[in-house]
Formats: sequence, structure tokens, C-alpha cells
Amino acid sequence: MSIRLPRGTQDILPGQVEKWQLIEEKARELCANFQYSEIRTPIFEHTELFLRSVGDTTDIVQKEMYEFKDRGDRSLTLRPEGTAAVVRSFVEHKMYGDANQPVKLYYMGPMFRYERPQAGRYRQFVQFGVEAIGSADPAIDAEVIALAMSLYGSLGLKKLKLIINSLGDKESRNAHRQALVDHFKPRIGEFCSDCQNRLEKNPMRILDCKQDHDHELMKNAPSILDYLNTNSKIYFNKVQQYLTNLNIPFEVDSNLVRGLDYYNHTAFEIMSDAEGFGAITTLCGGGRYNGLTEEIGGPEAPGIGFAMSIERFIAALDAENIELPIKNEIDCYLVSLGEEAKDYTVGLLHKLRLAGFSAERDYLDRKIKAQFKAADRSNAKYVAVLGEDELKANKINLKSMATGEQMEIELETFIDKLAELI
Amino acid sequence: MSIRLPRGTQDILPGQVEKWQLIEEKARELCANFQYSEIRTPIFEHTELFLRSVGDTTDIVQKEMYEFKDRGDRSLTLRPEGTAAVVRSFVEHKMYGDANQPVKLYYMGPMFRYERPQAGRYRQFVQFGVEAIGSADPAIDAEVIALAMSLYGSLGLKKLKLIINSLGDKESRNAHRQALVDHFKPRIGEFCSDCQNRLEKNPMRILDCKQDHDHELMKNAPSILDYLNTNSKIYFNKVQQYLTNLNIPFEVDSNLVRGLDYYNHTAFEIMSDAEGFGAITTLCGGGRYNGLTEEIGGPEAPGIGFAMSIERFIAALDAENIELPIKNEIDCYLVSLGEEAKDYTVGLLHKLRLAGFSAERDYLDRKIKAQFKAADRSNAKYVAVLGEDELKANKINLKSMATGEQMEIELETFIDKLAELI
Repeated sequence: MSIRLPRGTQDILPGQVEKWQLIEEKARELCANFQYSEIRTPIFEHTELFLRSVGDTTDIVQKEMYEFKDRGDRSLTLRPEGTAAVVRSFVEHKMYGDANQPVKLYYMGPMFRYERPQAGRYRQFVQFGVEAIGSADPAIDAEVIALAMSLYGSLGLKKLKLIINSLGDKESRNAHRQALVDHFKPRIGEFCSDCQNRLEKNPMRILDCKQDHDHELMKNAPSILDYLNTNSKIYFNKVQQYLTNLNIPFEVDSNLVRGLDYYNHTAFEIMSDAEGFGAITTLCGGGRYNGLTEEIGGPEAPGIGFAMSIERFIAALDAENIELPIKNEIDCYLVSLGEEAKDYTVGLLHKLRLAGFSAERDYLDRKIKAQFKAADRSNAKYVAVLGEDELKANKINLKSMATGEQMEIELETFIDKLAELI
Repeated sequence: MSIRLPRGTQDILPGQVEKWQLIEEKARELCANFQYSEIRTPIFEHTELFLRSVGDTTDIVQKEMYEFKDRGDRSLTLRPEGTAAVVRSFVEHKMYGDANQPVKLYYMGPMFRYERPQAGRYRQFVQFGVEAIGSADPAIDAEVIALAMSLYGSLGLKKLKLIINSLGDKESRNAHRQALVDHFKPRIGEFCSDCQNRLEKNPMRILDCKQDHDHELMKNAPSILDYLNTNSKIYFNKVQQYLTNLNIPFEVDSNLVRGLDYYNHTAFEIMSDAEGFGAITTLCGGGRYNGLTEEIGGPEAPGIGFAMSIERFIAALDAENIELPIKNEIDCYLVSLGEEAKDYTVGLLHKLRLAGFSAERDYLDRKIKAQFKAADRSNAKYVAVLGEDELKANKINLKSMATGEQMEIELETFIDKLAELI
């Protein structure tokens, strides 16, 4: 019996992987321009990290974590998101002491959530994200949002909707929290048991409950925007002003709360507006997390970031019928006839590749006709043929597949000649 | 209390991560030239896959796997190596039916082994590897080895030693196996309990036992090379001939057996010869694994590949004192004075970045002197200064940090001017 992929995961194969590579390349390029440096944290962390940061009343922590004990009986968890580990690393390596503040970081890599697999939702998925830690300047909130929008734009996505909200500072959140408790408490018995637990612990989580989404109390629940204090209002206004300044259209949606506990002030999501995109339209989510460094045991350092799913990025490109500029050709295919010519071309092939050409030959002892077919399939710009007679004469036959033109070339000048042609 | 990295793992931080990026870029470039395409398989697989492929008597499977149950009670394992999953994917996606054979794939990513952490050995480490599946041409064995050697060479490593061996085909291995049983059986009581188990199951594993390494029976143990049948000898000779043809020096070492069960015919390791490199000198290991596709439930498809550790690659670069060409500068730093000028430069900064420049500004409301210091630290080629007077006059002041030259530029021509200068 054959062994298959674990449920909810996928292999990314040649033919598809080139899209991933291109998106990642673009992301790296933009991060260099925006001055974010890469950080790589481990695939797993101490479980405690996610309890403290993501929050122990969230769906992620309660239902979706890949938690396990290692052989030393430590409780480890495959990372369900990227921010907690980056902030852990910021604190552990005392980056708050670096001369350059804020510290601007990006990451890309797999994340893990044990959810019900469905179209476009995997248990292992890939996120690209950035974090700017050490500044509470609303201009950097705008920068972070602008980076995400620019990446989508650079690959041609047009049907995007940016929604933003403010979750306010601690004072504003506390006022809102009390209003939520007052609002839901009288009828909390009509809600699911998760929500009943959330009421005292974290009533804002009720607002993104998947089960009670349509309860009538949800519609007129107190809006955080009505509870923002003056500082929070000024901050939110300034963020909006910068976004306008950068020509980035947005909508304010007071229902946007995000499924993680650590957010405050700015929260945002970027959705695809493309027709037929499917049910899950959020491509990217992020927000500000002042206070998270302290939660993890470090000094105060206000932060903001986002994470985007590469799977959904690709789905959005597909929904808008965008073809990415992916090269699918090689410079030269070497065809050989006879053992001696084969041995010679094995060496020549290696020299071509070291000289920077993409090149290929046959490894199945195929007859010459089948070798030509393979050359065709490889989309070779040039096909070079070496038979026994050519080898004796120290020549090789080169054919341009674009023009059909053929030429005979001295073997020892072959690489120089090909360099001239390509 | 702060939360720290899990034991045996590391964060790769800015300042170090650029080395990783450069090695990966080079690897991707070479893979394109050598016509290997990327494949990405999940971080975890069904545990069964590794039992069947790596082998249930190996140290990896017996002692080092991160095995856990998911919430659906499946036994999953964080991949301890890359080949098994690539071959699983080859079979699952029926790549043996593709017109282009052999199928040539590469992967890069984290692997996991629960070993005692020590200098240069991590529980999560990163491997780059290639697999060529579907050809039993000795020329492709040479190609795979040549690719690894070329990658090391392309980044300047010189002190390398390539050792190769043949483990022969099934018939040769069976003959050798019997010879090993005959050799060790009379005195097996002097060996560790692992070796005692291995004697009947897989006596070749005794040869790479870490504990019994110095037992006198190890020194004169039967050599596989004395048991190769004619076909295996011809194959091995041809591989050596191709390596010579490609100008790749090598040594034959009949003790090289590799710590995985699936190898046959060609096996190889590349070691660092650099002084002071440390105890673990193997940078890269690989070999042929005809029969592995069948083991995993697919049709016959002979394969060969290698895996190299990026951590040890970097250690080898360090040991040879090789400095990688890593760029550490930005095109332009924007300094602003006053709220209005700040707001303007926030927009200008964004335009610069979208135009392809790496650019930065201050996000800490720093005084102008501190902004200049930050510009210095960022290694900016140019520093642009916008004050209230300049803004009124629609001008910006630009200074070349290389020459000290200053110029006043119309604000609206600023980006064009910078493009001319850089």
C-alpha cells in the first residue's frame, strides 16, 4: 500500500512552485526597499508562548494547535502564526537595545492549524509577514499596510479591499469591554458555551464567534469606535490621514476585531473583491500589538505587523486571471550519438552549466529521435548535436529552435559562440 | 519570566540571515542551470513513511524522530530528512508517468532530529537537497555529485574532500551482508545491544555504530567492494570515469555506508578539510536508492540524490575565512524637520520604494541631529533633507555620502534625479 500526504497538507510541485518563488522574490525585493530584514524562527515553540500571546480563549489556542511533547517531555507547539515567535526573538536577543529602532523584520514559512480542511484552507499553510517593533508612530502603521498593498499590486492584483479599524488603547478597550458585558450578559444563555466562557474572560471574542454569528444581539453590539478615548482617536485619525497621503483607499469597519488577543489600536484586513473568489476572502490581516513584548517578558516596545497567506494570494491571482511572468525554457539541449560522443557531452554539459547556461541532456540512453523530442519538450532555445563524425572533426552542430538556422561550430569555441547567441 | 527558544533550535537573525539567503539564491541559480525544479513537501509526514524508507533499525528512526499524534489520532513525524517525502510525492502524484524522465527535483527547508545539541548540531537544521528519479545512468550520479561540488565552489570553498563508495546492487549487498554476519556473529556479545539487534536485521548498520566504533572487529570487517558483482563493478567504474571527466577529484572509501537504509550502488560524502573546522566534517551526503519507490508503494524508478546542511556550509565558509559579498547599504535616507515636512516625506518615501529604491526615514520623532546619525548607521548612499523652508520652495536638499557633494533639487524631479545618480 502506498503512503499518502497527511490530511490537510499539500505538495507544491513544479509547475505550481514557480508562482510561490515569484511571490517570495517580489516580497524579498519589496522588503529590501522598505528596509525590513528577514528573521527565521523555529517551526515549533514552547506551548506557553502561544498561550500568553495569541491568548488562551482564542479558537487557535483552544482548538487548532499542533501541540506535542518532545522526548525530553517539553510541551512544544508547531507555530500557528508568526508574530509571537518574532516578538519572543526580539525580547530574547535584546533587540530593543539595538541602535536602529524600530526593528523591522519579515518572515516567510509554514504555519500550522488543525482546522477542518476545505477549499483554500490547509492545516499547513505558508505566511509572509512583517513586524515593526519599537515605534508608536502612526506613519509606520501606514507603512506596514502600504507594504502589503504594494506586494499585491506589484503582481497585478486590482480587486482589493482594505478595511481598517481601531481597537483603541487599554483604557478604551476596558470601557468597550464593560459595554460588551452589559450588552450580552442578560441573554448570554442563548449563546454557545464558548461564548458563555468568553463573557467574563474576553467578551470581544464573542464578536468573532463562528457559531453565534447571526444572533440578533450581534447586530447592535457596542462598537469599539464609540469608546475610543482622545489619544486613541487622534492616533486612528492620523493613520487614516497617512493612508490617504499614500493614495491607499480604505474603509473603516468597526466590526473588525481579528482572532488574536494581542491587538490594539490599528487593526486591518485586506480582502479580495474578485468574483468567484470563494468564501474566505481575507488575504491578509494585521494590526498593532503594544504591550505584547511585556506579555512575553520583555520591556515595553510597541509593535505592528501583518501576515498574509501565500495560498490565498495565489487563489486571488487565479480569480483575477493574472498570468505571472514565469520563464519555462532552457538555453541549450545536448543531443549525442554513440558512447564516445555521450561521454564528451557529459563534460560539455557541465561546463555549460558552470558558465551560467541552463542546459540538459538525455539520461535514458534514448535513440536520437527521442532525444530530439525531449529537446522540444524542454523548450530549448538551441539544440546542439554531437555524433561520432562531428567528434572526430572536433565540431558540433548547433540549431536555433526559434529560426531553424543551423551552424557547425568548433568544439572548443562552442561555449563562447553560445554566449554570443544568447 | 520570559519565554525562550526551544532547546536545540536557533533564531537566524539579520546580520546572519543574509548568508543563508545568498547560499539559497546560488543553489536556486545552479538548480536552474542543472535543470532541477523545486518541490515543497509538508513539514510532517505519516510516521510510517520514515519507518519504511529511512529504516526501522536506524538511529534516526529509533532515537531521533519527533513523533506525535495529531488531534485526529494520526501518528505524524516531523521530517528527519528530505528524500522519503520527495519519493512519496513522486509516487503519489504519479510523476513516473511524466514525459520528462528522470524527474529532477530540489528542496530546501528545515529537518528535525532529536539529538544531543552540540556545536554545529541542532535539533532543527536546514537542508538543501536534490533528487533525480527515473534514471539508472551513471552519468546522472556524476551530475548530482557535480551539482553539490559546484555549489560549494561557487561560494569559494576550496578545502573539500569528496569520498565515494559503492554499496552494490541487491545481490552484492546480500553477499556482503552474509559476510558481515559471519564476521561479527562469533563475538557479537562484545557489542552494544543496538548492534546485537542489528546483526540479523541489518548488519551493515553495525559499521556506523557510534558506540562500538573502536572495536577491533570493525577494522577488518568485510569490505563491500570485495563483494560487488560484475554489474555493480561496471556501474561504479563508470561513475568514477565521469567524475574524472568532469575534473572532480575523489577518493574511494569502502567504509562509507551512510546512516540510512535505502542506499545502494553509489554513496558519497563531501567533507571539509579546513583546519579547525570541528569534529563533524561532513557537509553533504548522498547516494543512489534504487528500489525506494517500490518500498513506498510505487512502481520501479531508480533514484539518486544528496542533502547538505546549510548550517555546516556556513561553518565551512567561516573555517576558510571566506567573506560573502553581502550588500549592506540603502539608496536614500529621508530627513525631515517639522510636522508638514514629515507628512510630505512619508509620501515621498513610499514613492521612492515603489520606484525600486531602498529607502528609510525616522519613526521615533527624533531631532534632526539624531536623524542624521540614523542615516549614517543605515549606510545611505544619499541623504535627502526636507525642512519647512525647502517645502515652501518646493525643493529638497540631497547629499552624496560618498563625495559630500550637496545639491538642491526641485521636489517633483527628485525621484528622476536620484535615478540618474544611482
